[in-house]
Amino acid sequence: MMYVVGHKNPDSDSICSAIALAYFLDAFPARLGELNPESQFILKRFGLMEPELIKTAKGKELFLVDHAEKSQNLDDFDKGKLIGIIDHHKIGISTTEPIIYLSKPVGSTASVISELYFRGILDIIGGKNKELKADIAGVLLSAILSDTLLFKSPTATPLDKELAEKLADIAGISDITAYGMEMLTAKSTVGKMTPEEILHIDYKPFDMSGKKVGIGQAEVIDMSEVASKKEAIQNLIDEMIEKEGYDMVLFLVTDIMKEGSEVLVAGNKSSFETAFELKLDGKSVFIDGLMSRKKQVVPPLEKYYSN
Amino acid sequence: MMYVVGHKNPDSDSICSAIALAYFLDAFPARLGELNPESQFILKRFGLMEPELIKTAKGKELFLVDHAEKSQNLDDFDKGKLIGIIDHHKIGISTTEPIIYLSKPVGSTASVISELYFRGILDIIGGKNKELKADIAGVLLSAILSDTLLFKSPTATPLDKELAEKLADIAGISDITAYGMEMLTAKSTVGKMTPEEILHIDYKPFDMSGKKVGIGQAEVIDMSEVASKKEAIQNLIDEMIEKEGYDMVLFLVTDIMKEGSEVLVAGNKSSFETAFELKLDGKSVFIDGLMSRKKQVVPPLEKYYSN
Ligand SMILES: [Mn+2]
Ligand SMILES: [Mn+2]
Repeated sequence: MMYVVGHKNPDSDSICSAIALAYFLDAFPARLGELNPESQFILKRFGLMEPELIKTAKGKELFLVDHAEKSQNLDDFDKGKLIGIIDHHKIGISTTEPIIYLSKPVGSTASVISELYFRGILDIIGGKNKELKADIAGVLLSAILSDTLLFKSPTATPLDKELAEKLADIAGISDITAYGMEMLTAKSTVGKMTPEEILHIDYKPFDMSGKKVGIGQAEVIDMSEVASKKEAIQNLIDEMIEKEGYDMVLFLVTDIMKEGSEVLVAGNKSSFETAFELKLDGKSVFIDGLMSRKKQVVPPLEKYYSN
Repeated sequence: MMYVVGHKNPDSDSICSAIALAYFLDAFPARLGELNPESQFILKRFGLMEPELIKTAKGKELFLVDHAEKSQNLDDFDKGKLIGIIDHHKIGISTTEPIIYLSKPVGSTASVISELYFRGILDIIGGKNKELKADIAGVLLSAILSDTLLFKSPTATPLDKELAEKLADIAGISDITAYGMEMLTAKSTVGKMTPEEILHIDYKPFDMSGKKVGIGQAEVIDMSEVASKKEAIQNLIDEMIEKEGYDMVLFLVTDIMKEGSEVLVAGNKSSFETAFELKLDGKSVFIDGLMSRKKQVVPPLEKYYSN
């Protein structure tokens, strides 16, 4: 049986895209970890069940959403059979056989799936052109809003906005911005979380030219939500450098309203400075306009490590 | 300016797909090597010009067709800007940023492009839904027939055949089989070629878990066309092992009518035997049913080398 699954430490795009694509593919939606508060809010809001937690790829057909990197999937990923990928990230996977692959540089994986739906072309990736119900439209809309930070992220495109409006119609959401703020506020239970929980809201390990690099991100509506926990988070990532073989671990506290991120740096400080062409005063820096790990953090690091 | 380009040692799918996709993307079609006799026949038949030979990626935007491996593109590939990929091969490329990627396990890249055209959805990969003229339909049809060996290859799918029939209508080809045989016969000027030319009709180097492996293929309608040249080809690939750092070089003489291939083996003979679960008597073996390098030769070798 085929499972549609997003990345480890799933964000809302991974969860919602898995649910929606599984619906169109007649497959099972799956997840590789606990839902974050935002994803919980979304599923509750539209009355949908959590995808099934899977722990092995053995004997499964897999269709990936929202990632194209083995390190972001199950440890025994190679024991499954990879059928396809729908994504909006860089390519970080190699295969031994041709598969279905559709990726576009847009704001979310949910956008790519929604475009296939509205064009009536889900069959080009092996799906059925079924009718989109309000609940699935709602989770797809939520994933677009989440990944694009209400279209404020530099990864957002006009297509994301256009699709979100069509989805909102079907989902019965009359005010996208109001719903988006409600969703982001639900996400921002950051204030109630432990430093460890905050670090793992959206954490991803990367293999960069053989070096292990970790990047976590938390989005807040106001920096004060995390102010008292920054030191503890810094200690946690410093510890990861010592104990888990990382070359560098970054943690981004992204202020959605100010449109910038405070970056906490652990490990190879001078690598960070070279990659971002700046000087650190201490162990962190606020970078104005920095919103996207994928578009603004991973590329300069990949480039740095490949040299 | 954007260039649409197929792989090194271009086959007809690489040439024809570059021409067709460049038309829809308002880009330049390009090639990375000389046209084989079959591609020459096709372009002459439909009155189209050769794509431009390019020698550097520097300063160019690149859209790849029919391959997703750096080793099959220009040596300075990284100096160009990769925009997208349309393909039907395994994934063997990584990127530092999201790109447009559409790949499907079908018989040819031309099939993927043709499907986008007939569905009126070329815009999903950044193209325009322009009208398909007889000449472009003709080259797309030819590429499908070439890559699927008139639908006899195990890589051929019902979609390839369905698209070929629609393309034939537009191209004014009333008998697909008759045209295909004419094209394959044009290709089979193998009899007039030198061993060196035969070896390079369709030769590809691969990086398999760090080892260099080369696989060439020539298709013939009758084995007698190459009988007198097999020994010389064997000598050439033996020489490549000694001088060019290859671990293994294979040369497939594929008999289209008999539906099987004679495989000449140079280098690590026991690796070949293990990967294909057979014993060689001498340096070559005829394998019944073996038609596709991509589907039947590369996967067992990739698997073998990754262990
Ligand atoms: Mn995403
Ligand atoms: Mn091809």
